[in-house]
Amino acid sequence: MVEYVRLSDGAGGELMDHFIKDNILKYFSGGSSGVSIPVPLSMLDDAAVVDDIVFTTDSHTVKPLFFPGGDIGSLSIAGTVNDLSVVGAKPLALSAGFIIEEGFPLDLFERIVRSMSETSSNAGVLVVTGDTKVVERGALQGFMINTSGVGKRHPLLDDNFKEVKRYRGCRYDWLLDGNLSDGDCIIVSGCIGDHGVALLSYREGYGFETRVRSDVAPLNKLIECILKVGGIVSAKDPTRGGLANAVNEFSDKSNIGIILEEEAIPVSDDVSSACSMLGIDPLEVGNEGKVIVGVVKEKAEEVLSTMRQHPLGRDASIIGRASSEVHGVVMDTIVGGRRVVRRPLGDPIPRIC
Amino acid sequence: MVEYVRLSDGAGGELMDHFIKDNILKYFSGGSSGVSIPVPLSMLDDAAVVDDIVFTTDSHTVKPLFFPGGDIGSLSIAGTVNDLSVVGAKPLALSAGFIIEEGFPLDLFERIVRSMSETSSNAGVLVVTGDTKVVERGALQGFMINTSGVGKRHPLLDDNFKEVKRYRGCRYDWLLDGNLSDGDCIIVSGCIGDHGVALLSYREGYGFETRVRSDVAPLNKLIECILKVGGIVSAKDPTRGGLANAVNEFSDKSNIGIILEEEAIPVSDDVSSACSMLGIDPLEVGNEGKVIVGVVKEKAEEVLSTMRQHPLGRDASIIGRASSEVHGVVMDTIVGGRRVVRRPLGDPIPRIC
Repeated sequence: MVEYVRLSDGAGGELMDHFIKDNILKYFSGGSSGVSIPVPLSMLDDAAVVDDIVFTTDSHTVKPLFFPGGDIGSLSIAGTVNDLSVVGAKPLALSAGFIIEEGFPLDLFERIVRSMSETSSNAGVLVVTGDTKVVERGALQGFMINTSGVGKRHPLLDDNFKEVKRYRGCRYDWLLDGNLSDGDCIIVSGCIGDHGVALLSYREGYGFETRVRSDVAPLNKLIECILKVGGIVSAKDPTRGGLANAVNEFSDKSNIGIILEEEAIPVSDDVSSACSMLGIDPLEVGNEGKVIVGVVKEKAEEVLSTMRQHPLGRDASIIGRASSEVHGVVMDTIVGGRRVVRRPLGDPIPRIC
Repeated sequence: MVEYVRLSDGAGGELMDHFIKDNILKYFSGGSSGVSIPVPLSMLDDAAVVDDIVFTTDSHTVKPLFFPGGDIGSLSIAGTVNDLSVVGAKPLALSAGFIIEEGFPLDLFERIVRSMSETSSNAGVLVVTGDTKVVERGALQGFMINTSGVGKRHPLLDDNFKEVKRYRGCRYDWLLDGNLSDGDCIIVSGCIGDHGVALLSYREGYGFETRVRSDVAPLNKLIECILKVGGIVSAKDPTRGGLANAVNEFSDKSNIGIILEEEAIPVSDDVSSACSMLGIDPLEVGNEGKVIVGVVKEKAEEVLSTMRQHPLGRDASIIGRASSEVHGVVMDTIVGGRRVVRRPLGDPIPRIC
């Protein structure tokens, strides 16, 4: 039987997880090159750590290229800065690999490059190397970018984990998905679902009106602020598959249950009504400027108030806690029930990044 | 007037150079992030150096995906290992960013991933991080890969430059295009043009018969061998735009003339006859397993004989020298004349990598 790659194999949910484990990981797990890899590919975290270098990559195929609040340029820079930052790195430098369809308008190309430049200035991380490929008409629709990034262990990370260890032991000394323990608090830095909904509202065939703008933003400075407080054990940017996917990764890799409080999860009215109109769950919609962190409970209030003082964390909220009383992720709902929050099969909105 | 991106803007020659300088560099040259960048983007060398990390990126859009001697998988790994190695880095780790068209056959995908795995084992460099995107049918023809790579300064590089400095001063202490001086010898590691010709022979619409196989191979171990000898000042893998482009980059960035000896340039009979049949210049055809090095003349014979002892350098040859007597690149031809070797406008064979 011939099998084919499906859209859902790249949609950030459970199916992508299977696709990667079944078809990619087995070829790249063996062998040794004599270098130390504290966070290898097989951990499937947001970035790898090799010797003392943090390294990550992302290809961007977002559709449309320009959307309310951002474009493929700002998205590519922010996405890679964020993937470095959420494991506890200080981003050092980025690469830009352009793949362009012949005939792509030069003014749009420059608008994208300018947007990359502005976002990288905001983040304080430079693009230092690049590659440009042009393919004939029809070989690619328009434009795609790969951005990879390198960083080093953030100088504040050691003190952060010292603070953690005042209260309990900790498995890894990077901000990894597998670090949560019973009682840790889960904090999200703001309203969820904005990016996916903004994108969808702008796509052909949907065209519903909304004031929602993408939240795309580099989070390195926000994360730096909370590292100063200390006590952070895990961090993740909930992109494809949204909050539901990210929190399930925390739970799976830490082998601990998570109880979310629906009431505490910040969702704007506009996103909420767009989602109910479209029949999708805001928990499963992707974000590009939000971070979810796991924090030892003793530091949670201080981390929360520090986050709220940062422009990108004003709507931050403690949305739940790790708990050995449950398996997987459950949510206490506003109406008083409790429901399971599964890992979505894929993202309900394709090509969000 | 609306302007559009042309195929030649990504074809590795003079037009791509203009495209990058006019449309990309100006947005990424400013600003400072407080990190040291000994080899910045603006030098347009094969990789950048940031703090002590060497960093490079390449998107692979080769057509067809499978060709005599290799495939997009081996090409992507070798290409990135080579870009790190030619500036003087020891490659540490690679990333793999897959962009796949929905419906791409899974068995072909696995064949590519297996090929990446084998090539990375041969090179002794692991893939440590990745990204997978799937786009809907028609948004992309088949399959593309981005590979980025990180490395560190090769431990042999300091001794290599000590050897250089026994004979003369040297501008940069990395193997950069701008390091050549009057009298330096230019060595190529083997026959040129194999990759481009192998690819073309396999493409629809051409279908000429040839025994030529792509030379795709990781060059890090060959380069390590000659670094042990010392005296290397510049190195470059002549991919898009071929030898003609690479040697012109040496000449331009070092601000020194180069005299090539046509007789000394190794070209196989098959490539030679295919090129004359097609009316293209083998000097402009891309390679994926060759390196061109600039060496102080006192070490040239020793570097040559060391190269020839390595399986990937058996046909190595001293093909010319840097000379202040000429401007740009000229070639003394077999028939006794001298002709200018210009930087090609683009690669005569599109989508070779």
